[in-house]
Amino acid sequence: MEAYQRIVLASRPVAAPTLDTFRLESGAMPRPEAGQLLVRTQYLSLDPYMRGRMSSAAPYAQPVAVGDTMEGEAIAEVMQSRSDEFREGDIVRTMVGWRSHAAINAKDARHVRNRSVPLTVYLGVLGMPGFAGYVGLKVIGQPKPGETLAVSAATGPVGSLVGQLAKRAGARTIGIAGGASKCHYLVSCLDFDAAADRHAEDFARVLQDLSPDGIDVYFDNAGGPVWQAVLPLLNRYARVPVCGLIAFYNGVPQTGRDWLGDTMLTVLRRSLLIRGFLYSEFVSDYYDEFLEEVGPLVANGEIRYREQMVEGLEAAPSAFVGMLEGHNFGKVIVKVA
Amino acid sequence: MEAYQRIVLASRPVAAPTLDTFRLESGAMPRPEAGQLLVRTQYLSLDPYMRGRMSSAAPYAQPVAVGDTMEGEAIAEVMQSRSDEFREGDIVRTMVGWRSHAAINAKDARHVRNRSVPLTVYLGVLGMPGFAGYVGLKVIGQPKPGETLAVSAATGPVGSLVGQLAKRAGARTIGIAGGASKCHYLVSCLDFDAAADRHAEDFARVLQDLSPDGIDVYFDNAGGPVWQAVLPLLNRYARVPVCGLIAFYNGVPQTGRDWLGDTMLTVLRRSLLIRGFLYSEFVSDYYDEFLEEVGPLVANGEIRYREQMVEGLEAAPSAFVGMLEGHNFGKVIVKVA
Repeated sequence: MEAYQRIVLASRPVAAPTLDTFRLESGAMPRPEAGQLLVRTQYLSLDPYMRGRMSSAAPYAQPVAVGDTMEGEAIAEVMQSRSDEFREGDIVRTMVGWRSHAAINAKDARHVRNRSVPLTVYLGVLGMPGFAGYVGLKVIGQPKPGETLAVSAATGPVGSLVGQLAKRAGARTIGIAGGASKCHYLVSCLDFDAAADRHAEDFARVLQDLSPDGIDVYFDNAGGPVWQAVLPLLNRYARVPVCGLIAFYNGVPQTGRDWLGDTMLTVLRRSLLIRGFLYSEFVSDYYDEFLEEVGPLVANGEIRYREQMVEGLEAAPSAFVGMLEGHNFGKVIVKVA
Repeated sequence: MEAYQRIVLASRPVAAPTLDTFRLESGAMPRPEAGQLLVRTQYLSLDPYMRGRMSSAAPYAQPVAVGDTMEGEAIAEVMQSRSDEFREGDIVRTMVGWRSHAAINAKDARHVRNRSVPLTVYLGVLGMPGFAGYVGLKVIGQPKPGETLAVSAATGPVGSLVGQLAKRAGARTIGIAGGASKCHYLVSCLDFDAAADRHAEDFARVLQDLSPDGIDVYFDNAGGPVWQAVLPLLNRYARVPVCGLIAFYNGVPQTGRDWLGDTMLTVLRRSLLIRGFLYSEFVSDYYDEFLEEVGPLVANGEIRYREQMVEGLEAAPSAFVGMLEGHNFGKVIVKVA
């Protein structure tokens, strides 16, 4: 009998997860029941939000139980269908988790029919991260021609799309990323107007020099010290979509200084808008429009993106740990099959 | 020759202003030039925002220079008019500052013609503070029937109107104020559903007990420890109009704990909206509607308010210092003439 593999949460991380946080297990190949599909994972998406699910007080949804399979979205191939809506060989998107195979309900799978782009983009720039960037910009950030937009984690699937869409909307774009090579990539390949290396000792000054007219939209994927550098540069009526806070996912660093007062005083004095959001809030209103608008731009190469592919399900834990530390460069995808 | 009196900024306060921060001066009665009015101040408004103008880095506008007259809005009587638009005896609203008389440009005065309400309400519930409450609620807070709204500094001119308007909109209202007598007043006279005393040792627990369904709108006039108690109670999609931060005006207290991370994580996880604002942003779009809607409610007693009147311009400094410490009870007005 064939076996399948999965990665389970071995223990709840207190701060940063380590390899011991995860455990690779195998089991008997699942059998689909009526209305179900047996799927084989081709590509598994790794995303920072997953860190939240590993804590007992998971922020958005139920936490992953210790011993349960880690959650995650994947592109998978239908091996066996017991549903009229799918056939063997179909390619689907599904929240299958960190596993090589799964029996899933047909209603939890969505066809991937458009093959004008590589399949993996449905986990990145045309997937949930890209949609979060699109809708956070469209509904909250609303960059206008001539305004300045800054975005953190700018080489990731959210940030890279945000920067490119804002530029197309006529804004001046500043990408914030960790390290010189990422910054070089932002300007030379993604057409950002400027890039600031958050690892640089004089990061705050560099960002200030790059923002002579201040910042009108700060798309926050980071939180932490980046926010402290951005805050004094925000213009009156600046908008701050808060999409991610990777600096805080492993715990909130205590610097000995309470930055909340400065933040709130600036919110008041500059009439700032800060709005947290999850992509799911906007799916019904904006998802179709997103695919229609951004899909062709990705297909024809006008919107560019970068992926970091790791091989094999067993490589997922180290890739995830590294991503939370900013060691990835682009959207992290695990090639499973 | 008759003399007039004024109160000038004697020195910039480092933390809380004291009586030494101010100086009473007198001078020769000003003479109006062509296009000007000589006015006599009847009622001077004292408002927390004035603390900002006393710092060299004034938040919204030019700081008051050391030696200059403190700024402030007043109800004044026209003693002499060199403008066709005003006559002797007219009552006007004007940013005359902390002074007994002034020569002002006619274009800087606005007629007060509606005498169905006491003149002083044009400095409070029907003035700039009331308008800030109205528009912050209407544009940002947007309470819906059945939702819960909390407001800090609830007995003040902003907070008291916010609570009463939210109640009329069908929300459950919780007023936050300092001391038992203010809390009693909120429930017994202003018809709040509940009140929480921020001076109580178990304030956070009390607020939690009073919010069994969480908080959907938090109208922030306070910042500081009140925010820390409100934050965990905010529901998904809660709205936070930031209208004032009196806890921070004399400097940001450092508690040894950085509350920014908790705040931003909650913003993200609960999809919160935080929006700072000044009333001036909304005057052209909403001021007429505000007077039309709220004016009659004040005139017929459906909207109630409380004033704390102090006598004489020379009493303004101590009243202002006390207000920043929360010792006032209701809108602070100096009866000058």
